[in-house]
Amino acid sequence: MRPVTFLSDYGLQDEFAAVCKGIIWQLAPGTPILDITHGIAPGNIRSGALTLARAIQYVPVGVHLAVVDPGVGTDRAALAVEAADGRFFIGPDNGLLSPAVQICGGASAAVRLDPERWGMTDPSPTFAGRDVFAPAAGALAVGADLGDLGDTADPAGLTALLLPLCQVEAGIVRGVVLWVDRYGNVSTNITEADLTDAGIGGGDAILISTAIAGRTRRERVPFVRTFADVETGRLLAFVDSAGQLAIAVNGGDAASELGIGEGATITAEPSPALL
Amino acid sequence: MRPVTFLSDYGLQDEFAAVCKGIIWQLAPGTPILDITHGIAPGNIRSGALTLARAIQYVPVGVHLAVVDPGVGTDRAALAVEAADGRFFIGPDNGLLSPAVQICGGASAAVRLDPERWGMTDPSPTFAGRDVFAPAAGALAVGADLGDLGDTADPAGLTALLLPLCQVEAGIVRGVVLWVDRYGNVSTNITEADLTDAGIGGGDAILISTAIAGRTRRERVPFVRTFADVETGRLLAFVDSAGQLAIAVNGGDAASELGIGEGATITAEPSPALL
Amino acid sequence: MRPVTFLSDYGLQDEFAAVCKGIIWQLAPGTPILDITHGIAPGNIRSGALTLARAIQYVPVGVHLAVVDPGVGTDRAALAVEAADGRFFIGPDNGLLSPAVQICGGASAAVRLDPERWGMTDPSPTFAGRDVFAPAAGALAVGADLGDLGDTADPAGLTALLLPLCQVEAGIVRGVVLWVDRYGNVSTNITEADLTDAGIGGGDAILISTAIAGRTRRERVPFVRTFADVETGRLLAFVDSAGQLAIAVNGGDAASELGIGEGATITAEPSPALL
Repeated sequence: MRPVTFLSDYGLQDEFAAVCKGIIWQLAPGTPILDITHGIAPGNIRSGALTLARAIQYVPVGVHLAVVDPGVGTDRAALAVEAADGRFFIGPDNGLLSPAVQICGGASAAVRLDPERWGMTDPSPTFAGRDVFAPAAGALAVGADLGDLGDTADPAGLTALLLPLCQVEAGIVRGVVLWVDRYGNVSTNITEADLTDAGIGGGDAILISTAIAGRTRRERVPFVRTFADVETGRLLAFVDSAGQLAIAVNGGDAASELGIGEGATITAEPSPALL
Repeated sequence: MRPVTFLSDYGLQDEFAAVCKGIIWQLAPGTPILDITHGIAPGNIRSGALTLARAIQYVPVGVHLAVVDPGVGTDRAALAVEAADGRFFIGPDNGLLSPAVQICGGASAAVRLDPERWGMTDPSPTFAGRDVFAPAAGALAVGADLGDLGDTADPAGLTALLLPLCQVEAGIVRGVVLWVDRYGNVSTNITEADLTDAGIGGGDAILISTAIAGRTRRERVPFVRTFADVETGRLLAFVDSAGQLAIAVNGGDAASELGIGEGATITAEPSPALL
Repeated sequence: MRPVTFLSDYGLQDEFAAVCKGIIWQLAPGTPILDITHGIAPGNIRSGALTLARAIQYVPVGVHLAVVDPGVGTDRAALAVEAADGRFFIGPDNGLLSPAVQICGGASAAVRLDPERWGMTDPSPTFAGRDVFAPAAGALAVGADLGDLGDTADPAGLTALLLPLCQVEAGIVRGVVLWVDRYGNVSTNITEADLTDAGIGGGDAILISTAIAGRTRRERVPFVRTFADVETGRLLAFVDSAGQLAIAVNGGDAASELGIGEGATITAEPSPALL
């Protein structure tokens, strides 16, 4: 049996995620299921897509179920996709799957899920996880072929996720906050290569400007390796474990400290060393 | 080994649920355990019972452990129940188990759990999950008979869950909000059949009145299939994935929008089509 | 394969815990992983250590991974420890592991984890769970020897967890709140033996004084077995399931009621029976 991973915006308070896992286990008894998270903010496709993309290389090759599906019940396609590295992805065709699929070498095959193939003639128009996606994941977990699950779709036609690009010009990098983690660490779409292009290297200080809802704030921040490279309570900039520029407070919560969140704009430029 | 499902109000911050699962795995090493949820509001028996009932048909036949137990340490019975369809249910006899047991064909056998049968002479008077319920679940998971776990009890004597009934009269349906999910969708005790009895069908508009804490509010709402059948930000009425009348906001949170929660009263009546 | 347990302050919203579990499963496919909790407050080593210590005796003997690691990226040691009872513990050497290891008979062997042993030449300085601790847990789960994971360390040198001691004098017990659980139950560092030393026994009333942030409050509280021994909404004192003096409200939240939390001081003294 193939192991299954599962990401959604179902939360853990209601039974939604458990019902999907129950269906997977009815088809593939006891197959290992790894919950990536069910804490994606309701309907936040981008957050779900980025979380899946950050996690995918660390989880076993198998069946990767993802459900953040504000278009449930409409004619958005429900897909199963095989990636070039042999992983299967299942979810709505709304951009949620594409960054992870790309990391896995791109889509080599795809089908549009057809619940009638497993006798589901009237799937719920509000809970496709239960009636469409989980049955497909369970079937793939026990070795079904993609073609058993629906009609062939164009693997090149997978809906892309639109992400803001970071811009480097004249020693300034302009980016966006893509993620605030549980600790309040603020992660951006700026990579280490972008910083190098702007002439910023480890050990430098960075002048950070953040803006959200029209309020701008500037901070001179040391660019270091890890939290404890600055004193407790102080801001730092670092390359996080996913390779992105991030801002943190050692022992604190940078998002609260800076008053920013997902979607805030952020610029970084070289700065004279801290006084 | 039989698979185990587990529902409780323990939350996931403390180690309570893990301790119970550890005990199950000491008795039944590695048996699959499916957490239905541990996010039931503390002591909310009705919410736990309804969640278990909504989930039960989708999870594998096995041992179904449920602990929402405000009467822990009193003489309320601790039960193991076999249902007509072969499922085993374990939990306090306070109404928590009965809707799910009924869905599974009713109780065919029951025992009152006796911890002395497994050498537990002094069970904690505040953590029966650990000392009474989990050991029984582990024993059943590895194939114990009900009779190994305690003295026979009357299967017909299971405490019922009292639920408010919905009333249909003169084209008006009066019900109650039983559940608000993570998305803020508001689910009621009104079924599609109740709506049909009141002359309300799909495509109609419904006049919804909600009342909580003396504040009444009326909204004319389209009765549709799914969220995207109305514009983003607009209220809709629909039959949810459990077959109940629910109110939602497409892309939003109906409970916040309407200022209501569990226990609010709700009436539905046919309305002229939306202007 | 050895079963794995996992405790952290990663939360369940981000993918951190799942990434670690994914790595464990890449090395030890499908090995049972029991999440003790990922809800430890960020960086709260004491809370993590006490939670692990309370849970350890109830979970299967195996590999016990724990990550609450505010010193990540510094030269604090990353350890794998074998306890006298055969359990393996993995985590940072900051006090997190020591109470649980002590319960398991003390450390009989230890190594300082060396990621180069598994080809990780440049571990992330901010996510040791992924690059250091989880690979070690996976290796031990499939039967690696401690010595495969790093250079020998002094098992007697494990960093201890400093805990406030409770003081008994002249019929008064002075302690500290160590834990507030999901229900708002307030658990202390005072044991039943401490109460006996102060002349307090079951059935007595206790005069409780709590102080936090300079605000003191006194309550006369019955010392009983379980919640339902007092009326709904009333305070009670009891010995909790971990053997510590705890304060609760039957059907309510004692921490909110008393306005206290972790770290509050608490004194208990015998009191005339309640009027």
